[in-house]
Formats: sequence, C-alpha cells, structure tokens
Amino acid sequence: MPDFPLLKNDLILRAARGEPTERAPVWIMRQAGRYLPEYRALRAEDEFFTVVRTPELAAEVTLQPLERIPLDAAIIFSDILVVPQALGMEVEMVKGTGPHFPRPLDGPADLDRLRSPEDAAGDLEYVYTALSVTRRQLGGRVPLIGFCGAPWTLMAYMIEGGGSKTFARSKAWLYAHPEASHRLLQRITDVLAGYLVRQADAGAQLLQVFDSWAGLLTPAAFRSFALPYLRDLAGRVRAERPGVPLIVFARGANYALPDLAEAGYDVVGLDWTVDPAEARAAVAGRVALQGNLDPCALYASPAVIREEVERMLDAFGPGAHIANLGHGLHPTHDPAHVGVFVEAVHELSAAQRPG
Amino acid sequence: MPDFPLLKNDLILRAARGEPTERAPVWIMRQAGRYLPEYRALRAEDEFFTVVRTPELAAEVTLQPLERIPLDAAIIFSDILVVPQALGMEVEMVKGTGPHFPRPLDGPADLDRLRSPEDAAGDLEYVYTALSVTRRQLGGRVPLIGFCGAPWTLMAYMIEGGGSKTFARSKAWLYAHPEASHRLLQRITDVLAGYLVRQADAGAQLLQVFDSWAGLLTPAAFRSFALPYLRDLAGRVRAERPGVPLIVFARGANYALPDLAEAGYDVVGLDWTVDPAEARAAVAGRVALQGNLDPCALYASPAVIREEVERMLDAFGPGAHIANLGHGLHPTHDPAHVGVFVEAVHELSAAQRPG
Repeated sequence: MPDFPLLKNDLILRAARGEPTERAPVWIMRQAGRYLPEYRALRAEDEFFTVVRTPELAAEVTLQPLERIPLDAAIIFSDILVVPQALGMEVEMVKGTGPHFPRPLDGPADLDRLRSPEDAAGDLEYVYTALSVTRRQLGGRVPLIGFCGAPWTLMAYMIEGGGSKTFARSKAWLYAHPEASHRLLQRITDVLAGYLVRQADAGAQLLQVFDSWAGLLTPAAFRSFALPYLRDLAGRVRAERPGVPLIVFARGANYALPDLAEAGYDVVGLDWTVDPAEARAAVAGRVALQGNLDPCALYASPAVIREEVERMLDAFGPGAHIANLGHGLHPTHDPAHVGVFVEAVHELSAAQRPG
Repeated sequence: MPDFPLLKNDLILRAARGEPTERAPVWIMRQAGRYLPEYRALRAEDEFFTVVRTPELAAEVTLQPLERIPLDAAIIFSDILVVPQALGMEVEMVKGTGPHFPRPLDGPADLDRLRSPEDAAGDLEYVYTALSVTRRQLGGRVPLIGFCGAPWTLMAYMIEGGGSKTFARSKAWLYAHPEASHRLLQRITDVLAGYLVRQADAGAQLLQVFDSWAGLLTPAAFRSFALPYLRDLAGRVRAERPGVPLIVFARGANYALPDLAEAGYDVVGLDWTVDPAEARAAVAGRVALQGNLDPCALYASPAVIREEVERMLDAFGPGAHIANLGHGLHPTHDPAHVGVFVEAVHELSAAQRPG
C-alpha cells in the first residue's frame, strides 16, 4: 500500500459507516464533467477515452470541481465501459449520442470472444495509476471514490451496443438465453471483483457500483439477474478489503431497497423518485443512504435550491446520510448553482444537527 | 347518443367495474401500430397525423390488430399530442425520432399563445368522428377505448418540444415557475375534461389517461403538479358521464399507487416494474388493475411467453384484472408472438377461475 497524504476530511467515510457526523458530507454524480468550462476546454483537445486512459489528464479532470466547489469527496474520472473494453470489446464515445459498440454481443456464441477475467483486470492498469496519481494530488483534502458499472448494466450495454430507450435486445436475452445471461453476468462479476480490489489498493477510499439500468428490469428479473451478482461482488471485495466502504446505486429499482440493504453494501444510493423517509423505513437502519435531490432543482434560483435542500435534509433526518443528487449533473447545469447546492447542504445540515 | 351495434363482449367493462369475469380481458398498448405489416403498408402512403386526422383511415388502423388477434378491446388510433395541436401548437412526427414541436413554450408569457379550452375541444371533431366510425365498424365485437395524455405529460411535451431523456426544461419550469405551471396544467385539464366527455358521446366505452412521464417527477412534485389534475379530470368526466369506466396509467409513478387508487379512476394501469401482488396490496381493493407483462418477454419463445403469462396471472390473482403489457408494443415485436400472449391470457386465466 503506497504512502498517501493524511486525510483531513473523513466525513463521508464516517457517514458511510453509519457514524454520526457534524454535518452531511456531499458529493455529486458527474461532478467532473461537461457542465464545467474548464472540462470542456480540456476535452476540446482530447477525446473522452484519451482522457480516461491518461492518468495525468484523468487526475486533472477529477480535481477540477474541487477547485471551485467545497465537495467532500472526489470521484475518479473514468467510465463504466472501460470494463467491456478490457474484456476485448471496442467502445467509442460518439459526440452528442454517447457510447457506441461497433460489434455488440449478438448471441451466446459471442461470449467466446471475451477475454479472461485475469487478462481484463490487468488491462485496466491505467485506472489504478490514475487513482494513485489523483490520491497524491488530492493531498488528503477529501477521500477519493473509485467505481464500476454493475454486472447487469454492463451486460445491457455489451448486448445493446449503446444507450437505448428500452434495452430490448439485452432484456430479450434474459428471457431467451437465461443460462448464457448468467454465464455472462458471472464473467463480468469476476472481472469487477478484481477490478474493485485493485482500485482500493491503488488509492480508492470508497467504491461505488452503478446499476444504471436496474430500473428496466421486472422485480423478478432483478432478483434473478442483478441482485445475486451485486451481492457476490460486494462479498468478494469485502472479504479482501474489509476497510473500504461500498456504495450501491441501482437507479429505478426502488422496489428492491429492502434487498439492496442486505446485499453487503454500506450505503444505498437513491434516485430522486423515492421519498427519503420511505427509503429509511425500507432499509430499516441497516445501511446509510445517499442522495437524492432532483437534478432539475438546480435549474431553479438559489433561494429555491436552498428550500429544496432543506426539504431533502428534513426527509433524510440527521446522520447516516451522504448528500448527492438523485442522478448525475447535466451538461446544461450552471456551476454556480452546483455550488449553491453544496453550500446549502453544509450549512443547513450543520444547523439541523446537535452541537 | 347515436344508435350503435349491440355489444357482444363486455368482459373489459365488467372487469373495469371490479365485477368477476370468467377470464381476464386483454388488450395491448400500441396494439395498432408499426409491428403490423398492414399498418406499415398504410403508413407508406400517408403521414402519421394524416391517418390520425382522417376518420376512415384511423378506423381502419384501429381495427387492423383485431383481424388477426382475439383482443377484448379496440383503442382508437390517435395520439396524445392532438391536444397541444388543438391548443394551437404545431407538432410534427419526425420519422425515427418521434414528435417535434418547432416552437415549444419558452416561458410563462407563451401561455398567451394558447387557444381557449372551448376552441381546442371544438378543433378535435376529427377524433369524435373517428370514434363513431370505428364504433360502427366494430359491430359490437368488443368495446372501444378512447384516451388522452395527462396534464403533466402534455405540459412536459409542450415545453420540451419533443421526447427527452430528462425532460429538464419542463421539470425546470416546475421549480422556477410553479404558478405558471399550475395555470398551464389547469388550462390543459379544462381541455381534456371536455375532450373526454365528447369522446364518450362519440362512442368511446372506456377512457384511458396516459401519464407517460409521471415517473420523472419526485413524489412531492407528483402530488403537487400531477395528482390534483388527474383527480380533477376524473371527477369532471365522472360527473358528466358516470357510466364510462376510467383508467389511469401513470408510468413509473409506482410510489403513487395508493394515491392513484383514490383519484377517481376505476382502473389503475401498472408498468412492468411493479409486482402485481404488491400493487394489489397498495390499492387495497379500491380499483381494478391493468397490466403488466414486460414487453420484452414477447421476444422470447411461445413456451416462455406462456410461462411469463402464467406467472403474471398468478401474481394478479383472479378478478378485477385487465391483462395488458406494462408498456406499449415495440415496432420490432412479432405479431405471432403478440397472438401467443393474448391466447395465453385467455386460456390460462379461464383455467385459473372457478367454473
């Protein structure tokens, strides 16, 4: 384990463990990204995956939001689709439309095209280097979050070949090729387990698993094709690196909150369509919660943003809460309004808690 | 009231009223549409809104699926966006991308551009004619469903100007212009109330309200900007035409099921992400339920489709159930598999029910 600078702000680590904190820590999904002019300037010169694969650039982008906004965590600039790439699939980022796989998986026979989990985890060295570089440059200001896509979400992209309104091709696999679906999901899980452990060793102090397309599944399909792999992943990472808090964010799978609370994660992320008080009841104190302001609230005036933050904090109640949006920032968000959100969380959550 | 042919199959009307039926009635959202080669052939000659605005063509398309599939209801071929058109907004259907408003509402001042509710409901004469023509051509085989978009969903399109992943512009209105949002929602509701009453008078035997974008709202925003208008709409139609069952389908707003069960509708539609048994508990017998097979299940083999139908019917239990998918058919669905779904509902639900 390298010798990293001493951590000065451990709020998010304490909140993730369910310990009381003097105020709610806050970070934001996509806090490094297109809403920042300095990010757009850097991207004018380099392609998306060039930034991701160049540790110095990834570190620079990761730190950009912290230079202007008092966030309580950094999250490494990367993409969940580096794992399909490491498995041997080509992925391009197409301007304006998002990721595109020129050759998505067409049927179960295509599983033979994929590289072994060992080869895949080894191919991701550039992520580990980016984490170490960033952790050093952070100088202990705040903790550094590593992440990956969940098995089902990565499977969905690998079959669909990009974003989709319905993900009909990948969902059709679950019905038509259940056995091959399980094989693929296990293969992805095997890669992810090693990937997260190595992220922790490289400097990640929390790890978040994004199940972005969980909400497209029926509850039965979630229990059969998503949950077991989320659980397996958490169990394996926990066994190897017990000190690193784990966060799961299964967007849209609000019906699954009680299951997610028992899946081996420390924190469950909420999207903005859940009432935080109902979520607290559903998870029954077993995990900390993260979220969940509607990203669109940041289009309102600073006064309205503060009101919405207050309403959110009241609904979560004090303690075991990591403030965040219920989804990532949009490219059209105003960085000044993002700052208003973060400062409102700091100020109002401190006022809410006993001295 | 015109003298229409006697109804031979009233299963869906009885199920909507919560009466026991010997088997579950079934219809499918988008049952008239692009998955049918005969629809694509007709559309090769006429633009989408030409078909909608030409009663003979709308009737022909409405009846197409019934010629090959033993559905228990017809739904008039139309579009929820005819109401924004009637309010004076231009809407084009762009091939491959969907609806497009060249001049969406830009701010509260644009509300002055909209026509009055009376003028708008009068402009929709072609829908009423299409319903009467279709009802006559149906010859009493099955009931005819009329529909409209819900106030929030229509507002979302009118501001956004088309489909969107986040509907950020329209959601930003809710936070930035709450008063103007309420004025717009009330204006739309006023049009819809007259529109639904006149659909019933023209021959519609059930009426469905589609709140397609309800799932983008926070629970608080749903209670403030969607639910009151859904309730107002149902109350006004019910007061004027008490005999016509009302269905509400608020996609993605599963947190709102208990509220929807008290909003004045006879039937609440479910998307595929809700467990029907949990939905039964949430609505506590106050309404019939409609839905909710995952549309992607129809990509599987006939044997798997039958298994999934059986699982769905078991979860709903006998009675007060109108079978449907949890969302509309996709253009890539195979009409033969759609037939397997409908026949499986007929056969398996009959077997499930006493004598």
